[in-house]
Amino acid sequence: MTSKFRVSKRAEFAETDMAGIVHFSNYFRYMEVVEHAFFRSLGLSVYMPFNEAMLSWPRVSCSFEYKRPIRFEDEVDLVLTITKVGAKSLTYTVDILLEEEAIAHGTSKMVCCLLEQGKMKSIAIPPLLLEKFAPYLPR
Amino acid sequence: MTSKFRVSKRAEFAETDMAGIVHFSNYFRYMEVVEHAFFRSLGLSVYMPFNEAMLSWPRVSCSFEYKRPIRFEDEVDLVLTITKVGAKSLTYTVDILLEEEAIAHGTSKMVCCLLEQGKMKSIAIPPLLLEKFAPYLPR
Amino acid sequence: MTSKFRVSKRAEFAETDMAGIVHFSNYFRYMEVVEHAFFRSLGLSVYMPFNEAMLSWPRVSCSFEYKRPIRFEDEVDLVLTITKVGAKSLTYTVDILLEEEAIAHGTSKMVCCLLEQGKMKSIAIPPLLLEKFAPYLPR
Amino acid sequence: MTSKFRVSKRAEFAETDMAGIVHFSNYFRYMEVVEHAFFRSLGLSVYMPFNEAMLSWPRVSCSFEYKRPIRFEDEVDLVLTITKVGAKSLTYTVDILLEEEAIAHGTSKMVCCLLEQGKMKSIAIPPLLLEKFAPYLPR
Repeated sequence: MTSKFRVSKRAEFAETDMAGIVHFSNYFRYMEVVEHAFFRSLGLSVYMPFNEAMLSWPRVSCSFEYKRPIRFEDEVDLVLTITKVGAKSLTYTVDILLEEEAIAHGTSKMVCCLLEQGKMKSIAIPPLLLEKFAPYLPR
Repeated sequence: MTSKFRVSKRAEFAETDMAGIVHFSNYFRYMEVVEHAFFRSLGLSVYMPFNEAMLSWPRVSCSFEYKRPIRFEDEVDLVLTITKVGAKSLTYTVDILLEEEAIAHGTSKMVCCLLEQGKMKSIAIPPLLLEKFAPYLPR
Repeated sequence: MTSKFRVSKRAEFAETDMAGIVHFSNYFRYMEVVEHAFFRSLGLSVYMPFNEAMLSWPRVSCSFEYKRPIRFEDEVDLVLTITKVGAKSLTYTVDILLEEEAIAHGTSKMVCCLLEQGKMKSIAIPPLLLEKFAPYLPR
Repeated sequence: MTSKFRVSKRAEFAETDMAGIVHFSNYFRYMEVVEHAFFRSLGLSVYMPFNEAMLSWPRVSCSFEYKRPIRFEDEVDLVLTITKVGAKSLTYTVDILLEEEAIAHGTSKMVCCLLEQGKMKSIAIPPLLLEKFAPYLPR
């Protein structure tokens, strides 16, 4: 079975807006929180030295569907599932759970890139990384 | 012909990240900037008193596709186009232009709601608002 | 001896700027992170129901001195020390530690207020709260 | 007489918090908005190429005093006054005005630095810049 990666996150005051709930744009920061924790859990970073350049993962697209709001001090779970791996790209979903109820659903597609002297160039995902992602890749 | 609504926005330093470009989550704040300017241009607000409650527009879903990055001090144009109006909902796109080239494309769907004593309730878009939206509604 | 309150915080990618370090404004969000965790540790919240209104703590002033930068994925410690308690106000410092070295020093003064129907009114800090703060108050 | 530099800024929804007002940390982003607009008005940037490196202005310290809140869609004026110029540093104040009433007062001290290969080194403010700052320097 394909593994999912999960972390929890406390909703901060600064993330709320005058409607009394976490601002919708902050869900995309939550998305990154679980994505980056996922990379760290594999001994990687989304922004790491590689072949004398930086390996980075710029986003091609992302989305969120909002079902129920998140409030100040709610502790939510962020569940990342890789749904597709291309030669150069990775697509995943993030489900936000509040007391195990899915209250938001996000998707993100990003491309493996080398950042050299301020220039981005897409590359095939290095085998070293694919190996680490293996337990999480869709069958 | 259906009207589009356009404002310009300067990319701020605090909106950039260590990759040297505007962080992808901030595009959703740009989305709101043009949405709220659009409401203001009609003498409305996305958060306004209405029948002794507050009329608000919580988001159901939103997305962005990223084509080229935005850099510090770039002045981009944000172009809002209403693509669908439902009984209770409004769907629009936002194109981000840099020197007239479309560098990102966003979508957003929101629902007209009354916020009363901390509770949200969806309602039909009031005729007064529909009238003001009219020049921007799809034919 | 007076107690200090400490939590750790991971620097997130979205908190960095194009200079490659955590943006200076985000230190004030870190300040809130430890402040709010402190309140929670006492069974309180900085924004809690009280006598049929909301008890809140608007800020009167705050500051930070920056010694060394914080970088993406650094795990810093945030140490809160109450330095002064007035009839209606609380003043504290926050030291940010990286591997036990103090790399930033902040101060914050806030006032105890009741928020009723959108209006703020300062009040004496309720005895119930003072009691909980006791181990942390300066001698 | 010493010149002051002024820009206006609209309070955005995403800048508010659940207390219904602009979050205190965002005042520091407003501080940057006027600082960066000031540099631009002189044909400069706070982050600009200089002698084959980047010239940047990391912050040493900053503060804000809050008098009255800023609300969604308020249009405030941000007034920058240079209060001190050292060999390597610049200190200024920012007053936030709402309908010409000062509602917040900030200070900031920053140091002129060269950023080369990820390393910051403080330098004397280049004469070219001092010349441009001249009308704004304290007498």
